[in-house]
Amino acid sequence: MDYRSAFKASVARVRAEGRYRVFANLRRVKGQFPRARLRTDEGDTRDVVVWCSNDYLGMGQSPCVTGAMKQAIEDVGAGAGGTRNISGTTHYHVELEASLADLHHKESALLFTSGYIANQATLATLGKILPGLIIFSDELNHASMIEGVKGAKCEKHVWRHNDVAHLEELLKAAPLDAPKLIALESVYSMDGDIGPLEAVCDLADKYNALTYLDEVHAVGLYGLRGAGIAERDGLLDRFDIIEGTLGKAFGVMGGYIAADEVIVDAIRSWAPGFIFTTSLAPALAAGARASVEYLKSAYHLREQHQERAATLKARFQEAGIPVLESVTHIVPVHVGDPVLCKRMTDELLDVHGIYVQPINYPTVPKGTERMRLTPTPMHDDAMMDELLDAVKTVYAKHVGLKVA
Amino acid sequence: MDYRSAFKASVARVRAEGRYRVFANLRRVKGQFPRARLRTDEGDTRDVVVWCSNDYLGMGQSPCVTGAMKQAIEDVGAGAGGTRNISGTTHYHVELEASLADLHHKESALLFTSGYIANQATLATLGKILPGLIIFSDELNHASMIEGVKGAKCEKHVWRHNDVAHLEELLKAAPLDAPKLIALESVYSMDGDIGPLEAVCDLADKYNALTYLDEVHAVGLYGLRGAGIAERDGLLDRFDIIEGTLGKAFGVMGGYIAADEVIVDAIRSWAPGFIFTTSLAPALAAGARASVEYLKSAYHLREQHQERAATLKARFQEAGIPVLESVTHIVPVHVGDPVLCKRMTDELLDVHGIYVQPINYPTVPKGTERMRLTPTPMHDDAMMDELLDAVKTVYAKHVGLKVA
Ligand SMILES: Cc1ncc(COP(=O)(O)O)c(C=O)c1O
Ligand SMILES: Cc1ncc(COP(=O)(O)O)c(C=O)c1O
Repeated sequence: MDYRSAFKASVARVRAEGRYRVFANLRRVKGQFPRARLRTDEGDTRDVVVWCSNDYLGMGQSPCVTGAMKQAIEDVGAGAGGTRNISGTTHYHVELEASLADLHHKESALLFTSGYIANQATLATLGKILPGLIIFSDELNHASMIEGVKGAKCEKHVWRHNDVAHLEELLKAAPLDAPKLIALESVYSMDGDIGPLEAVCDLADKYNALTYLDEVHAVGLYGLRGAGIAERDGLLDRFDIIEGTLGKAFGVMGGYIAADEVIVDAIRSWAPGFIFTTSLAPALAAGARASVEYLKSAYHLREQHQERAATLKARFQEAGIPVLESVTHIVPVHVGDPVLCKRMTDELLDVHGIYVQPINYPTVPKGTERMRLTPTPMHDDAMMDELLDAVKTVYAKHVGLKVA
Repeated sequence: MDYRSAFKASVARVRAEGRYRVFANLRRVKGQFPRARLRTDEGDTRDVVVWCSNDYLGMGQSPCVTGAMKQAIEDVGAGAGGTRNISGTTHYHVELEASLADLHHKESALLFTSGYIANQATLATLGKILPGLIIFSDELNHASMIEGVKGAKCEKHVWRHNDVAHLEELLKAAPLDAPKLIALESVYSMDGDIGPLEAVCDLADKYNALTYLDEVHAVGLYGLRGAGIAERDGLLDRFDIIEGTLGKAFGVMGGYIAADEVIVDAIRSWAPGFIFTTSLAPALAAGARASVEYLKSAYHLREQHQERAATLKARFQEAGIPVLESVTHIVPVHVGDPVLCKRMTDELLDVHGIYVQPINYPTVPKGTERMRLTPTPMHDDAMMDELLDAVKTVYAKHVGLKVA
């Protein structure tokens, strides 16, 4: 067995598929978001405008967040120093969990070190807590949910994306009294579409299934207080478990679930991914709490955010740029080829100082490669003008698109 | 299907086994580590001395670490705002990975959001990269390694703890040319014993197996520069993959692997737990790097640490307290019953202001319930005197031990 060759071959496969990744080495400049400094392989730096951050509202730069973090470091130090059970629970954790439970109108919330592990650990553990569980998972659910469903080691059915008729077919075919769980996302982050939340809740009622909603790309951004699409649509009490992240609109890092106390207590007591790991650094919990609380009353920021996204989509459309239909803040622009996608975004970066990451397989299906833009309230009209000019130039050159 | 009852029953099971956990709500007081303030359920606070933190050297309180974190927040803000590939790589990440690679004398290192996910994602991915892989795992390996081995979905064999004869038996029985991986820890954190590192490397050579070493409880603490037991024993180059945490002796949060570049590149390209998650907050990376670099030349701190642990073990022994044999900085004291263990540690806390978390199943096997003490260089002689008096009192009362 030649291990070196095996590892090399596995990387060669990635390269052959045109999806070998070279990470852009960024240095944000605080107070100037979305501007940042990029370090090239040659060691030079150059100023860029970031158009692909998931810090959707720029909260990672907000003094209320950074101030809370610095104060927490000043008060209690760097890390938690233990798992939640062994000296790693601080009042920052307790207070953040209370703040998140309140956000989602749930009895309890439970912190994880990331949204990824929140999904993975919770779904896998549900499979153990509920013997005979059958999971119904939307086919475009995130990798972390897929890993969780696998870890649950139970029967699972994948329903066609957003297709509630298909979901019902599958539910109907399952034994009436078997425990069931329907898992979906609210905002699908690569297409910017939204799951059929209400119809799913109706089916869950009809077939007595639990509902699991990933609001990772919606928390902070939708609803009166920023609880997400379930809040916007008046469905908060109809989802049994809501999962979110502290690392996107909230601008920090970490993940969580919110649910009835008895559910949270069960996950807390059984999930290895919660139990056997150092808890979130207190400063992250402090910063996240400041962010969550700030955004509860920052409806104006959510409106500005939507306005920016709508404006960018409209301007792309006018200009003949193939912007994909999106009903959210996410602005995907079709390319359809991994190599071209990389070349175009490289040029945007090198020639125009615009950083948009190419989105290739496996993040999206082959043939649907795209640029994914995420305008924030901090992207002003002038930045948008520059972006439009640059994207038009690059499209005209590489796709031969007759842009306006 | 009555879900509520099912969740309740799953928690009732935990309660019945005497292992329902109530998290102590702590507030450290920076600069006064290991002293902290505990908040009781009644809302009062009281001062305690923490004797069970995994911030083994108090680095979480070190100005070099907290200063680097605050500076990073000042310079670039709170969160990374994206996955490593999509705008979430900063120079802090790049520099920390270089620093960790250097620490372990490896070509590369790769950051994860925790040591848990580093183990889980790496081991699971190795199973996918190396078709036909057979994993040989020590029976006391950590939950995160067990989850990773499960996720690898390959043939696995569990060898009796530290029993290299048994390991060799299993290796011998496997097909000669099948890819093999031996996974173990250096310091086992609940018993304080050390894995048979050199013998495992010899067997790996003999049977052409890869070696995977979890140094989570050893990094920062052993070896000339704090790379762990493999460094102390001159075995750094004999382990293919070394895994560590930034959340224990380094005092911050996060995890990593260090290995040949080709291995790191393969994991980086294939591991969902690395790819599909917001990257470490820049401030954590900055703080961790400061800590790693500081500890590379802080041999004196490692010596003080060992002295404190040796002294505590000797004093317990003299006093007739049933301290378990441990060759490391971990000081486990036998109790053997979960309810008694909880009662004794409650009393230490309530009466004596000493915080030691009871360690019960599933963290340790039933019947081996214990207190686990982790003296740091900051635990002075006076604190140790107080601890001894308190532990003697509690043992005399509850175990009827005739202590000196
Ligand atoms: C839908 C979805 N769920 C979960 C996650 C994971 O969240 P986190 O970045 O906090 O790990 C992501 C992206 O990272 C996501 O897109
Ligand atoms: C042996 C071992 N490996 C890995 C981990 C996980 O590391 P982290 O706390 O960084 O998730 C732990 C404890 O938490 C551990 O004890």
